[in-house]
Amino acid sequence: MPANPSFKEEIEASFAKQAVMTLIGARLSNVEAGSVEIQLPYRKDLTQQNGYLHAGIVTTIVDSACGYAVYTLMPAGSSVLSVEFKVNLLRPAAGDSFVAHGEVMKGGRTLTVVRGDVFSIKDDERVLIATMLATMMCLLK
Amino acid sequence: MPANPSFKEEIEASFAKQAVMTLIGARLSNVEAGSVEIQLPYRKDLTQQNGYLHAGIVTTIVDSACGYAVYTLMPAGSSVLSVEFKVNLLRPAAGDSFVAHGEVMKGGRTLTVVRGDVFSIKDDERVLIATMLATMMCLLK
Amino acid sequence: MPANPSFKEEIEASFAKQAVMTLIGARLSNVEAGSVEIQLPYRKDLTQQNGYLHAGIVTTIVDSACGYAVYTLMPAGSSVLSVEFKVNLLRPAAGDSFVAHGEVMKGGRTLTVVRGDVFSIKDDERVLIATMLATMMCLLK
Amino acid sequence: MPANPSFKEEIEASFAKQAVMTLIGARLSNVEAGSVEIQLPYRKDLTQQNGYLHAGIVTTIVDSACGYAVYTLMPAGSSVLSVEFKVNLLRPAAGDSFVAHGEVMKGGRTLTVVRGDVFSIKDDERVLIATMLATMMCLLK
Repeated sequence: MPANPSFKEEIEASFAKQAVMTLIGARLSNVEAGSVEIQLPYRKDLTQQNGYLHAGIVTTIVDSACGYAVYTLMPAGSSVLSVEFKVNLLRPAAGDSFVAHGEVMKGGRTLTVVRGDVFSIKDDERVLIATMLATMMCLLK
Repeated sequence: MPANPSFKEEIEASFAKQAVMTLIGARLSNVEAGSVEIQLPYRKDLTQQNGYLHAGIVTTIVDSACGYAVYTLMPAGSSVLSVEFKVNLLRPAAGDSFVAHGEVMKGGRTLTVVRGDVFSIKDDERVLIATMLATMMCLLK
Repeated sequence: MPANPSFKEEIEASFAKQAVMTLIGARLSNVEAGSVEIQLPYRKDLTQQNGYLHAGIVTTIVDSACGYAVYTLMPAGSSVLSVEFKVNLLRPAAGDSFVAHGEVMKGGRTLTVVRGDVFSIKDDERVLIATMLATMMCLLK
Repeated sequence: MPANPSFKEEIEASFAKQAVMTLIGARLSNVEAGSVEIQLPYRKDLTQQNGYLHAGIVTTIVDSACGYAVYTLMPAGSSVLSVEFKVNLLRPAAGDSFVAHGEVMKGGRTLTVVRGDVFSIKDDERVLIATMLATMMCLLK
């Protein structure tokens, strides 16, 4: 249950301050209690040597989706920190655009465990390309 | 022992094709058999909401440093793929610049395990801010 | 799709050879294409200093459940190796018994990514206590 | 710097209460500020189907070595909890005995990041067979 009634507005404001999201062209596409989605159109300047999205950029969007998913369940004024994450890269990050979905698996006062999935989208087909399992820390104001 | 005498040149050429490195301003600063370093000056447009380097950008440079460290030991014409990585974020990614160091821990024909460390640099002080443990796959041509 | 029609029998035979399973009292409770379950009754001699199941024993059952889940989808005569796993420990491993469930997330010829969950059972209540994200390697005979 | 002058005695007492260590035949072989070693002789009843030490048993000793390494640096009366760990299995766990070495990488008030290595020993040769990167939580009394 969300303890902070204005979590959506606060996440939108925080996302707008994540300068790297503007740089790469990502946008917040869904925010619900316990889960958040971020979209990223493919761009050539985000790629590694084979023209696929770089694994670090895949990580960038799914780490933020996971962090904000945790934030949706935290008391007002909290801040969320990534403690650690593991990412399995399942398929080449090719596609017209990408969606990172973060979802709280097990909440806690201090630590929250969260899962993230990244899908590529091409011709309306959605394919899982990466999965994250992460630990996030919540700091109360 | 490096099996490919021209690994340095090939890594430089491959790095130049990683368009994301140009976007974020990273450069290859050292390439040796078994280890690679990438430098990244701090830039405001690479940050998360608190002005620190985004964890995904930290991951971007250390994933490439690890991947190229593996490449130094592979036969000519190989390609290296990140299978998975885990990153622990140890301190806020603040500083004037950052250095990611990748080092092969255990090579193998198909899979190589590699460690990466990311340091922040401020006033000549080098502080460990993140560490990666990754599995990379080598595909022969 | 299972490529090996006798995967159940082969997994049962292999499980019987995992001597550690006999030592700790674990048994194979379900084998299906793509997923495997292992049960373990609580025993005081499997615990850490607070009387909870040791995290390494939790890992023992979920690693085998994940490995055999991969095996269900492999050609006859394959062998499966754990390359790496990450485990998040979500709650103290207390309960009358434990169930580890392994499920293939993304198959591949060489590498398969698999998820595992461990539940504790007490008075018919099933609580998630740990989750694994693992990479397994398949070696053909 | 160790904040608890009696950390050695407390770790010995805690280890004696880890019933699973008695079951598998492990013993605490070294305890220093910041690092701990646990030894385990090979036994057939600790193995998987090929006669190697099961990855879960490898994890059992290295998780405890890591947890106690954290404990050496904590205030008296603290308790240490494994939040998560990732293990890469580098070579088959064959040998006459095994040594797990845990070492604190980055301490913190609440969370500590710790590295663990497991070596097999055969004819006085020590070979790295697994490596762990873990997050531990410290709870003050």
